[in-house]
Amino acid sequence: MRDLPDSSTPVSGAGAMLRLVRDGRATTRAELVDITGLARSTVSQRIDALLAEGLLVAAQASTSTGGRPPTVLAFNAELGVALAAEVGVTRCHVAVTDLEANVLAEAIEEIAIADGPDALLPWLTGRLDALLALAGRARADVRGVGVGLPAPVDVASGRPLRQPSMPGWTDVPVGERLGEALGAPVLVDNDVNVMALGEHRLNWRETGHLLFVKAGTGIGCGIVVDGQLHRGAHSAAGELGHARAPRGGETPCPCGNAGCLEAIAGGGALARELTAAGIPARTVHDVTARLRDGDPTARALVRQAGRDVGDVLAPIVDVLDPAVIVFGGELADASDELVAGVREVVYQRSLPLVTRDLAIVHSADGSRAGVVGAAVLAIEHVLAPAAIDAALARAG
Amino acid sequence: MRDLPDSSTPVSGAGAMLRLVRDGRATTRAELVDITGLARSTVSQRIDALLAEGLLVAAQASTSTGGRPPTVLAFNAELGVALAAEVGVTRCHVAVTDLEANVLAEAIEEIAIADGPDALLPWLTGRLDALLALAGRARADVRGVGVGLPAPVDVASGRPLRQPSMPGWTDVPVGERLGEALGAPVLVDNDVNVMALGEHRLNWRETGHLLFVKAGTGIGCGIVVDGQLHRGAHSAAGELGHARAPRGGETPCPCGNAGCLEAIAGGGALARELTAAGIPARTVHDVTARLRDGDPTARALVRQAGRDVGDVLAPIVDVLDPAVIVFGGELADASDELVAGVREVVYQRSLPLVTRDLAIVHSADGSRAGVVGAAVLAIEHVLAPAAIDAALARAG
Repeated sequence: MRDLPDSSTPVSGAGAMLRLVRDGRATTRAELVDITGLARSTVSQRIDALLAEGLLVAAQASTSTGGRPPTVLAFNAELGVALAAEVGVTRCHVAVTDLEANVLAEAIEEIAIADGPDALLPWLTGRLDALLALAGRARADVRGVGVGLPAPVDVASGRPLRQPSMPGWTDVPVGERLGEALGAPVLVDNDVNVMALGEHRLNWRETGHLLFVKAGTGIGCGIVVDGQLHRGAHSAAGELGHARAPRGGETPCPCGNAGCLEAIAGGGALARELTAAGIPARTVHDVTARLRDGDPTARALVRQAGRDVGDVLAPIVDVLDPAVIVFGGELADASDELVAGVREVVYQRSLPLVTRDLAIVHSADGSRAGVVGAAVLAIEHVLAPAAIDAALARAG
Repeated sequence: MRDLPDSSTPVSGAGAMLRLVRDGRATTRAELVDITGLARSTVSQRIDALLAEGLLVAAQASTSTGGRPPTVLAFNAELGVALAAEVGVTRCHVAVTDLEANVLAEAIEEIAIADGPDALLPWLTGRLDALLALAGRARADVRGVGVGLPAPVDVASGRPLRQPSMPGWTDVPVGERLGEALGAPVLVDNDVNVMALGEHRLNWRETGHLLFVKAGTGIGCGIVVDGQLHRGAHSAAGELGHARAPRGGETPCPCGNAGCLEAIAGGGALARELTAAGIPARTVHDVTARLRDGDPTARALVRQAGRDVGDVLAPIVDVLDPAVIVFGGELADASDELVAGVREVVYQRSLPLVTRDLAIVHSADGSRAGVVGAAVLAIEHVLAPAAIDAALARAG
């Protein structure tokens, strides 16, 4: 299930036709013939199979020339649904989407990830089932499930890797267990990766290179290169929080190193600093509550945290040359201070060639990017050309 | 010419067949039928066209079963040649290669890039012509030309962008001028990018993610993601040298900022420090000469430069999660000190998940990665599926 098909394989099957229609590159058989170089009869045979399966729908185009109008093909996003969950440390966002990742129903619930997978996975299955009923759809409609977890994840096996904030989750086969419970393929990835993917598909689809930074209790980033998630050699790409911050000094970090960005600019560190300044705060929620009140101490602390994030990001911007950096996460969402601090440093410090039209922005969709990205992950998997060809072969 | 074909286009033309054979994924018509899903007659028609053009050659396989042996197809790398040049600030490496980027003839010449394009481009054309004659090939055999320049390059237009060390080159249409002189398509890219590409194809082809760091007068890096060069949104990816180094303080840098990595760990900075320590040195060559003599002051300085490079690389390693970091350039080639300094810091400072099997190595091919990468750039361009299909359409 996790042997992701190579999208660069020059296949000429029905799955490739479906992708061309989904990507908006072709809407008629004639266009498909032009693009693929296949015989018209071959294209028609494949399109007929996709129509028979309900993956495509055909409509008669209107025409002003009086001739017989061509049949316009469209992807049938209503054929099924995807289930999506963005699981955080204290919050879980669940959604049912159509096969274009449009949200049909969603909910946000308080959780405690430390309760562990034996408690949370059955709970999650129940929540997704309830949402499915709310959307008026059944288990049989579910084509795939996407899940974001606040840990590095081995995407191939669907298992989270070691993460101090997730005791009991290490190496648990989350994908397999949810797959058995829900009866559909499950894709699991890091939460910031799914947020990056969702943000790209929702708002920056025309942009090849995007960096998504989540700033909350922890600080991490997701990288989209040429429209695809960059996961790295060990599914560990994006670990921004444990980079050494210039202002980090010898501040100890739970990771065992000192001076990490998260140790001075993460939500926990800011809560401690706020407390030291006489404003009691325990978690990132307390910090953002003070921010929303306009408290000047909280604002100054978060502004400085933004500069610290900028110090670490500036060389990464020089090296990656992204078109846009999008910020999400509680600390970024609660005010303009964090992103303003990042802008101060990156625009001053990164190369003019790179920053001349670099956008550094808040996520336009707030918290929704995560579930949308999780849905996209599942949809791209089940609609991959090789998966479609295999499904049609079974059906045929 | 620079409108690079999208390799993810699911084409089914002869160009796609050629790619499957070149990549070693298919060696017989039967395998091509299996992989592409095309009719056997369609595959045969396309293979015949490739055989007629000489792009493929066919051989009878030996067989132990007594049946009629299948025809084995192979790419004909002898059909033509590529010309390649890695142009440095003081040195130019030129080569003639076959269409698998195997070097047929090469030369290394002293140059001064400050002489400008009006002097150097005609000189380069002459040198490539002479090398072509040496390899026993003619202008008509040249399929493409690849050039690496020590500046950011707008790859689409083949023009170098502003670079202080290259007065007179900014925005000069290098690709167009060489193309007119040599009568073949010319691809121009940053020198470190072509080194990264060459190193990947020569030694790390099975590895998706590679970082190539060149340390000489300047310090830069090239990024290979999923086997492809990552150039970024402004063709500026890889600008490592102007990242702020933790030890950089207020050291001024010619770029206008202070504390840049290059300002404390580049060849010029090390020459100044060596001079200050009583060992006169003017350029990076003087530094590497002392290194080769085993001078302890030079060794200590370059070791510290390696630690400085490591300080800047560590967060980039956390964020990109590469499988290997390869070092080239004069400072890295002259001794083990630079890479040893990098290892000290990166293995201590980057995340264990990322570094557990991260290779940090010297380039195995010394200076040859550059010309090989330049040749690969040209070859991938002229043999891209869309380019082959267009060429066959013209021929047919």
